[in-house]
Amino acid sequence: MGSVFGNKIKLSVFGESHGNGIGVVIDGLPAGEAIDLDEVYRQMQRRAPGGDKTSTPRKEADIPEVLSGLLNGTTTGAPLCAVIKNTNTRSADYSNLLAAPRPGHSDYAAFVRYGGFNDIRGGGHFSGRLTANLVFAGAVFRQILERRGVSIAAHIYSIGHVKDEALDPTGISPELCSRLNSEKFALVDRSCEDAMRGEVENARINGDSVGGVVECIVQGLPAGIGEPMFGGVENVIAAAVFGVPAVKGIEFGSGFAGTELLGSQNNDEFYYDDSGNVLTRTNNHGGALGGITSGMPIIFRAAIKPTPSISKEQRTVDLQNRCGTTLSIKGRHDPCIVPRAVSVIESAAAAAVINLM
Amino acid sequence: MGSVFGNKIKLSVFGESHGNGIGVVIDGLPAGEAIDLDEVYRQMQRRAPGGDKTSTPRKEADIPEVLSGLLNGTTTGAPLCAVIKNTNTRSADYSNLLAAPRPGHSDYAAFVRYGGFNDIRGGGHFSGRLTANLVFAGAVFRQILERRGVSIAAHIYSIGHVKDEALDPTGISPELCSRLNSEKFALVDRSCEDAMRGEVENARINGDSVGGVVECIVQGLPAGIGEPMFGGVENVIAAAVFGVPAVKGIEFGSGFAGTELLGSQNNDEFYYDDSGNVLTRTNNHGGALGGITSGMPIIFRAAIKPTPSISKEQRTVDLQNRCGTTLSIKGRHDPCIVPRAVSVIESAAAAAVINLM
Amino acid sequence: MGSVFGNKIKLSVFGESHGNGIGVVIDGLPAGEAIDLDEVYRQMQRRAPGGDKTSTPRKEADIPEVLSGLLNGTTTGAPLCAVIKNTNTRSADYSNLLAAPRPGHSDYAAFVRYGGFNDIRGGGHFSGRLTANLVFAGAVFRQILERRGVSIAAHIYSIGHVKDEALDPTGISPELCSRLNSEKFALVDRSCEDAMRGEVENARINGDSVGGVVECIVQGLPAGIGEPMFGGVENVIAAAVFGVPAVKGIEFGSGFAGTELLGSQNNDEFYYDDSGNVLTRTNNHGGALGGITSGMPIIFRAAIKPTPSISKEQRTVDLQNRCGTTLSIKGRHDPCIVPRAVSVIESAAAAAVINLM
Amino acid sequence: MGSVFGNKIKLSVFGESHGNGIGVVIDGLPAGEAIDLDEVYRQMQRRAPGGDKTSTPRKEADIPEVLSGLLNGTTTGAPLCAVIKNTNTRSADYSNLLAAPRPGHSDYAAFVRYGGFNDIRGGGHFSGRLTANLVFAGAVFRQILERRGVSIAAHIYSIGHVKDEALDPTGISPELCSRLNSEKFALVDRSCEDAMRGEVENARINGDSVGGVVECIVQGLPAGIGEPMFGGVENVIAAAVFGVPAVKGIEFGSGFAGTELLGSQNNDEFYYDDSGNVLTRTNNHGGALGGITSGMPIIFRAAIKPTPSISKEQRTVDLQNRCGTTLSIKGRHDPCIVPRAVSVIESAAAAAVINLM
Repeated sequence: MGSVFGNKIKLSVFGESHGNGIGVVIDGLPAGEAIDLDEVYRQMQRRAPGGDKTSTPRKEADIPEVLSGLLNGTTTGAPLCAVIKNTNTRSADYSNLLAAPRPGHSDYAAFVRYGGFNDIRGGGHFSGRLTANLVFAGAVFRQILERRGVSIAAHIYSIGHVKDEALDPTGISPELCSRLNSEKFALVDRSCEDAMRGEVENARINGDSVGGVVECIVQGLPAGIGEPMFGGVENVIAAAVFGVPAVKGIEFGSGFAGTELLGSQNNDEFYYDDSGNVLTRTNNHGGALGGITSGMPIIFRAAIKPTPSISKEQRTVDLQNRCGTTLSIKGRHDPCIVPRAVSVIESAAAAAVINLM
Repeated sequence: MGSVFGNKIKLSVFGESHGNGIGVVIDGLPAGEAIDLDEVYRQMQRRAPGGDKTSTPRKEADIPEVLSGLLNGTTTGAPLCAVIKNTNTRSADYSNLLAAPRPGHSDYAAFVRYGGFNDIRGGGHFSGRLTANLVFAGAVFRQILERRGVSIAAHIYSIGHVKDEALDPTGISPELCSRLNSEKFALVDRSCEDAMRGEVENARINGDSVGGVVECIVQGLPAGIGEPMFGGVENVIAAAVFGVPAVKGIEFGSGFAGTELLGSQNNDEFYYDDSGNVLTRTNNHGGALGGITSGMPIIFRAAIKPTPSISKEQRTVDLQNRCGTTLSIKGRHDPCIVPRAVSVIESAAAAAVINLM
Repeated sequence: MGSVFGNKIKLSVFGESHGNGIGVVIDGLPAGEAIDLDEVYRQMQRRAPGGDKTSTPRKEADIPEVLSGLLNGTTTGAPLCAVIKNTNTRSADYSNLLAAPRPGHSDYAAFVRYGGFNDIRGGGHFSGRLTANLVFAGAVFRQILERRGVSIAAHIYSIGHVKDEALDPTGISPELCSRLNSEKFALVDRSCEDAMRGEVENARINGDSVGGVVECIVQGLPAGIGEPMFGGVENVIAAAVFGVPAVKGIEFGSGFAGTELLGSQNNDEFYYDDSGNVLTRTNNHGGALGGITSGMPIIFRAAIKPTPSISKEQRTVDLQNRCGTTLSIKGRHDPCIVPRAVSVIESAAAAAVINLM
Repeated sequence: MGSVFGNKIKLSVFGESHGNGIGVVIDGLPAGEAIDLDEVYRQMQRRAPGGDKTSTPRKEADIPEVLSGLLNGTTTGAPLCAVIKNTNTRSADYSNLLAAPRPGHSDYAAFVRYGGFNDIRGGGHFSGRLTANLVFAGAVFRQILERRGVSIAAHIYSIGHVKDEALDPTGISPELCSRLNSEKFALVDRSCEDAMRGEVENARINGDSVGGVVECIVQGLPAGIGEPMFGGVENVIAAAVFGVPAVKGIEFGSGFAGTELLGSQNNDEFYYDDSGNVLTRTNNHGGALGGITSGMPIIFRAAIKPTPSISKEQRTVDLQNRCGTTLSIKGRHDPCIVPRAVSVIESAAAAAVINLM
């Protein structure tokens, strides 16, 4: 049941890249929540390919049809299902993948897992296209969360060796949050865009790809949310974020760098602000202590590996003839999915947070 | 329900540091599995304090009593419950913590979460002592896993700025695995022990603490285990590992470093070995592709923050008088929990893996 | 998350009677299972209205579109989603229901639960129409179960005061099983059909409705399936069967009548048959002992209340004006849903059984 | 994971009749709830054997030790674990059960399920003794529920052919509720006690046993609680109540009898009472419509089969020699467990209800 997430508000994601359609069922939404579908589509556009040199040439309409759970733009409390029909698929591009699994991709693992019955076309259920469902759901969640004072924003923390300015872990302004939420290539410091695009373009020219890091902040959660041990903020967010294909690591607050600090450096001292709120001056803990929110922003970074689909020739195996072979992947593939992953990571965070509340 | 983990084999952990006892219920174990309790206790000793300058002076008998689920050393299939009675507690050390939450610790978040009714003594349910339950369960799981060809080992990857040699991600020898499993200060390269202990001793002398990284490898899992999206190997392991207090990050395979590689560098090419197995020459993917095992070892690193409990004076708040104050934590505290965390991380991995199979 | 069922193979049902469409996502199906969609549609026809005097005049095409999870008629292992678009709805019939909740129906409880935001048209998400999803899923499950030797059949045990012959709890012939699976008005003893239809017709003429009991048998499950306590065969089947609207009771084996027996009468003595199988001569236990299958058929009966929607005038309340009022329900309503419930109960049993295995 | 119940407040029950101890972990309790353990023990006494001719001669101290989750009589929010040590066990009585499974008991099914490794002594994990855990948990839940206006009461609806007066499904007085909650042989009409005890004594004299029905009412739940389909009031209560050994049926409101009524008879008309509450004049629906509470009491009946353990000689099989044999069960066994089951059914209802809220 890998494609189901959540204990309180449950996502059930379905679809395969070149099947009839993809979609998501969201069960457990509160009734009476106004949902602005135009805003949902805007968020989906941030993830959609096209309009941007860094992304795949495949054009998707990606306009979901809502089958249930909404009446007059308001949630009814019944499960909300949205479906996106698949069009514009070119399966022939993938014809040789079954025999020769792509290095770094799910092909081989899925072949074994499903005994060869999985739909290999376009990566099937493992396709990045499935994240459109996640952004749909995340955009719905975020409207509900915003109404409760919780906002989420992410940016491209790095592509290859080029780094954006980090988010202030003690909080960002509503303006920056709003700006990041509207950008397709979301950056704190727009001046690094050219260098980043350069990294991507270099990879593209060489038939290669490049990875990066997405940094995400969740603001407005009160202290006291989450559970100890396995139900903590980090556990739930990590369980959601690793649901995004290509994520290979996650760290909260000072994360791995914090392991080189002393306790006296890494601890965040508490203080009362002028309004009588307990805050910390730094946010190395990343918003959760003992798995429970501290009232400070949740901040985390997710490592996105370089897209495995590259046109450069690679060695792999021929599963039919049981021997070595080489592979040069054709078809439409992003040389870098990090920019498109920004809204997906925000959405995974939203799914986690709405289940923690 | 934060203290419950697992869908197939379910852990339910209970206890508070200075209450009557702590323990764990394991539901769903297969019947007929011989469990060597002496080996379980050996693993628990690796986590136990004492016998080692780096750890807390508190001595714990930590001998669990098995109340159910075992008959003549063999699992009956009924839930297995083990209880460890608490003794040798010195609650007075913690008397001022409620009023003045320790920076970096769960005190404040738990105070809000539980309305001040939580047992603050010794950290209560958030105490690192609770991880003894996890090691008990993990040691049981590992005996069952070993019988199915799956072994787990971890080591101190780093303490502060001192790094051990990394594990070979394509596999380690049974001898190294066995040696690491028997060490209280588990290292690949024992020659770095002195430098690591120096980091800890420096921190201790200064009333400070230091963090580190634990690296863990799971060998012997066949390809094809795990689920896509939210039920993947990474999701399940991360959900377990973040259940260990002080973990603030996790990365699989090349992880964060991999984001700076090109796809052609990070992709692991497939080949047939002489026995006809499909393997990869490198293991940047860390054993899971699309959330599903590839047949290569699972390898991950967990970031352990420096222990928040330090005797150095820190600024915090006085929750009763609603003003700032300072705190110098007394009591028995590890200046570095990384060595003891090794068997805990192995155990969390075991809990995740047995639920994936 | 009321519309989600199952721990291993998970159903997520969505839709509202007069919305855009209804459907179901089935996550966790094994890959490589051939699914005969024509047989699925045949089972759905047994539930569908029309072609039978006892049922609602509303005609539904009810031909589901499979969006994912099937490739060349075989499961891919990815979630299977089927959608049925809604057509031929006459919402005006229901226009006064919000103000005046129908006695015996979910209207009032749902109004409170969802703050009036639920889609009241046709009962919304509570409509019996949603059971089409359950029959779709059940028919898929049953093909997989049949391949493993497990068959399921049910019949109209009673309508009002008229009773069919009971199933032999120690087992029915493949012929009877197959015949029942093909009937729209499934009876062991067809000679009682006229009397049953008479009960229904009497109710219909009087603008009234009538209830009944469905009896269901599951054959072919080996001994040793199920869990003690809350994971038992009865718990899981009951949790599924009460998901069918209008079910108000369930009993296994001798059930309520067995409470008037002595232990020596109700106990089922064990014996070895000629093939060396352990069987019981009677089946008062209904196939489960201690929650675990005994190897005998599972047999249960579900009580279906008389349809609450009747045209006879009833007293109710006017929620807007907060006073009493009367209601005579218009629209297309079955005077008896028991015949159509037969395949729905079989499907609920199938969903439970496939999750127990 | 059969011995775990609940999504919000989770029970994990462990123990075997003749092992070291039994107990329960309750995870997810709200913090700050005062728990009167004396009242908990009083409820456990109602289930305990002894002090009553109808029950087993085995005396149990059954005083649980609370290991965690309570501080100064108040819940801390951490998991609450209570353990009851086993004493006074006479395992020799059960020595021949493994070879010759008791008809009507779990022996054979468990033997197959656990490959013969289960602890057969005293029924092991299937023993009715495990229900002491459920009553402990239920008594805790009921104190929390009472504080929120929800009360639960049950009585012996019937033993064999003797019936008590039924509860008024539209509500019972606080006095009756309180009286039933204090009785070990709980009856509405105490004048039927002699006849009921006569049924039991008759069975006992003949080395036989007798079953019965427990009726339970839950009052004080507001309208609007529960979920549609699989998360409904009936589903959740049934899933809990079938966790009580020997329960073979459950019906809500008019239940099976209601299937013989017309819709106009079975429907419960709504009205406004003088305080402006929406009520129904009758309660054939048993408090739930569409799975959601209506604001009327929840009322259900559970069928308890006659105890399978009887001293009368029965035919069974010899699993070692694979042939028929006879069995006369020795040891201490209730001829009727219905009186003791009353508080267990109340507790199962409490576990369900607290998870629904």
